[in-house]
Amino acid sequence: MKKFLLLLSLFFAVTTLKAQDSLMIRKLYDEALVNGECYENLRYLCKKIGSRLSGSVGAEKSVAWSKKLMDTYGFDKVYLQEVMVPHWVRGAKEEGFIIDGKTRIKVPIAALGMSVGTPAAGITANIVEVKSLKELDALGESVIKGKIVFFNGPFDPRFIETGQGYGAAGIQRFAGPSAAAKYGAAGAIVRSITPALDDYPHTGGTVYAEGGRKIPAAAISTLAANKLSNMLKLRKLPLIKFYFKQSCQTLPDVKSYNVIGEVTGSEHPNKFISVGGHLDSWDLAEGAHDDGTGVMQSVEVLRIFKKTGYKPKNSVRAVFFMNEENGHKGGLKYAEVAAQNKEEHIAAIETDEGGFTPRGFSFQGIPAAQLKAINDKYSALFEPYEADRLVAGGGGTDIGPLKETIPSIVLIGFRPDSQRYFDIHHTPNDVFENVNKRELELGAGAIAALVYLIDQHGL
Amino acid sequence: MKKFLLLLSLFFAVTTLKAQDSLMIRKLYDEALVNGECYENLRYLCKKIGSRLSGSVGAEKSVAWSKKLMDTYGFDKVYLQEVMVPHWVRGAKEEGFIIDGKTRIKVPIAALGMSVGTPAAGITANIVEVKSLKELDALGESVIKGKIVFFNGPFDPRFIETGQGYGAAGIQRFAGPSAAAKYGAAGAIVRSITPALDDYPHTGGTVYAEGGRKIPAAAISTLAANKLSNMLKLRKLPLIKFYFKQSCQTLPDVKSYNVIGEVTGSEHPNKFISVGGHLDSWDLAEGAHDDGTGVMQSVEVLRIFKKTGYKPKNSVRAVFFMNEENGHKGGLKYAEVAAQNKEEHIAAIETDEGGFTPRGFSFQGIPAAQLKAINDKYSALFEPYEADRLVAGGGGTDIGPLKETIPSIVLIGFRPDSQRYFDIHHTPNDVFENVNKRELELGAGAIAALVYLIDQHGL
Repeated sequence: MKKFLLLLSLFFAVTTLKAQDSLMIRKLYDEALVNGECYENLRYLCKKIGSRLSGSVGAEKSVAWSKKLMDTYGFDKVYLQEVMVPHWVRGAKEEGFIIDGKTRIKVPIAALGMSVGTPAAGITANIVEVKSLKELDALGESVIKGKIVFFNGPFDPRFIETGQGYGAAGIQRFAGPSAAAKYGAAGAIVRSITPALDDYPHTGGTVYAEGGRKIPAAAISTLAANKLSNMLKLRKLPLIKFYFKQSCQTLPDVKSYNVIGEVTGSEHPNKFISVGGHLDSWDLAEGAHDDGTGVMQSVEVLRIFKKTGYKPKNSVRAVFFMNEENGHKGGLKYAEVAAQNKEEHIAAIETDEGGFTPRGFSFQGIPAAQLKAINDKYSALFEPYEADRLVAGGGGTDIGPLKETIPSIVLIGFRPDSQRYFDIHHTPNDVFENVNKRELELGAGAIAALVYLIDQHGL
Repeated sequence: MKKFLLLLSLFFAVTTLKAQDSLMIRKLYDEALVNGECYENLRYLCKKIGSRLSGSVGAEKSVAWSKKLMDTYGFDKVYLQEVMVPHWVRGAKEEGFIIDGKTRIKVPIAALGMSVGTPAAGITANIVEVKSLKELDALGESVIKGKIVFFNGPFDPRFIETGQGYGAAGIQRFAGPSAAAKYGAAGAIVRSITPALDDYPHTGGTVYAEGGRKIPAAAISTLAANKLSNMLKLRKLPLIKFYFKQSCQTLPDVKSYNVIGEVTGSEHPNKFISVGGHLDSWDLAEGAHDDGTGVMQSVEVLRIFKKTGYKPKNSVRAVFFMNEENGHKGGLKYAEVAAQNKEEHIAAIETDEGGFTPRGFSFQGIPAAQLKAINDKYSALFEPYEADRLVAGGGGTDIGPLKETIPSIVLIGFRPDSQRYFDIHHTPNDVFENVNKRELELGAGAIAALVYLIDQHGL
């Protein structure tokens, strides 16, 4: 009987807990949906500041404005964390032409981030199309040397989550130019990494192998890639040449900052839960979904806590990382400093997959039993918000280094609906107008709810 | 031991079945995502035909084109089902003004569908703001008589599914004008039923009570509604008047059609599973999400079956209903004819909540045990597609009447993500450009998968 009563009281304790959590989560969501400020903050970031590639004036302005915003909200700590970042500049607008005998067909291209420029007169060369790095390797130096390699592997539409399609096709952009250089290529043109057929080149970083040759590399729009591919199919190889010119270059590193706001924990000030996104963006865009939405959701979580009167037991930080796009220096610095300061980090959440309707969260590298326990504890609480997909998966680029310096940390990626992200990703179409207010706010609500639950009950 | 072996063989039979289903569903999705035609079909419907309110030239054209499309696909049967529909016309562009002493402030309004017009000179009257039908009732005839009632109940952003917010605020539009007429109101102005703050009046139908007075009623944009409300708060009531003029009218009913395509069942030709949306749209829009996406997904399901070589055991129909927006005559006719022909209907699926990322399906009025069984059987199969929310809920307006004539039928609503729908709903912004190709195609895949499962294993 005693045991029964104990079980009964435990049952009611758990039920009451759930009920309290459920009410609190509703309160957090209501604040996000009724009085939300992330949408108007995002408007300012996109429309008044705009693009903010590391080292640019936009990046500098965005740091100052972000700090001011956090100061205005009156968080317990607001500070800048100095970090040296690469300073790559695009230079003059790129030019690209398909040369078909005497005909020159202009095509939309954009230098890949961190690419070197061409000689001032540009490069003209025969073009070799490949669909993968494997094809490139099969052709080898005898075919590749002196040519422009055209990486034309398509984005596979069969992946349900577009992030997987991006990863699969993206390898051409990340590693293709460097691999082509190894075989003596003169340059690389990479099909834009998007499922959309459009006229925009989607830029993005490429990575040269340490100590390897650096060849100029540019993205080409998917429509132009299709045209080029069709022309190559229809005509004999030597007849089609490609010309491109770009004047991008990497200048010396410059000083920049992560921007950090903190609500200090009432019980465990040296234990941290962080929410972050990246403040930098590519130069071609307003960086709305990538990643203005992420930083504005991050600061919104702290604002929601303050506004609803929730005082976390552990310290909660909003971290605006600098330089995610072309160097990851901000994430590395944050992890380095956290370790130096012997901070104890419970969890880090990254939101860098766009401000779309939340589907859930992915947990990086935790045991299956722990993931199951997390689902048992929390998924029912997210169910009414349709954000209950708590799955295994990556955390994110900026929080990744924390796992190296603080192995006990749990890394968590915010998972919004992924369908529209790569349509606009790294293009001039990544603008405020393509962000939906409710979708953005629901994301802030979901993240606030998760931080609350971790703060109360752990993982 | 025998029992054990029996269980074992049952286990393997079920496992194999699941594996087969899983493979088939992947095949259906691949066809939708790789060779999908619904997006280009939708482009034609929106851009070449455009708006198609019942009785309009657009509606007539859309019927002819839809039949031709189905003929081209070579379904087993393609036919038109005659139905008489209301013929409401908007007439000249409406005019609306807030009159503040000598100042006239122009505001965006649009007559509600099925509304009567104003006298040719328009109506000017004092204005009474209410936030609900309850408030209207509390004020009563003494306050309302001779006034223009301004229904300004907001769309509650706290509902996670916007359809619930639409239902809650929408009652003002459906029933408000008729209720105001009862108290002697001269007219009604209704806040647009949307969570967005914008400059578009969102039109939509209103319903006059049988035999009651009919007063002219118009939607006003949410921004203008806020302005009017603020002015009413700041100044004494008699100082603010409202003027509006509209020349809409209801002409005699006209002949129109449901468009129906069928793949006839190989085993049970007189048993049916149907998938439908509505072909008509409001006059102000291209009717992209409402409901071009629904009809194009419906026909896509049949196309996918043909293309993948899937021969359903039961007959599968794509039904393009006419007149969902202002009369529901197509849905009523379809149910009537189905009963007359003694057709056995297993299930009807409606897709009329926009062409957004699928979240799942709602099952109308089935016992909880059956819903649980459906989840046990099918939700894991939808999980990889993130379309596994199989919940209790409404089927849809057009399929509703089938339940009256064929009580054994299961009515199912396709449930896409709901966040963006009411931003553009019933406005000139409901255009093809606001439909995402992948989101639309994933919906077609999900519906094809469900039809396949019902066809194979029932509900």
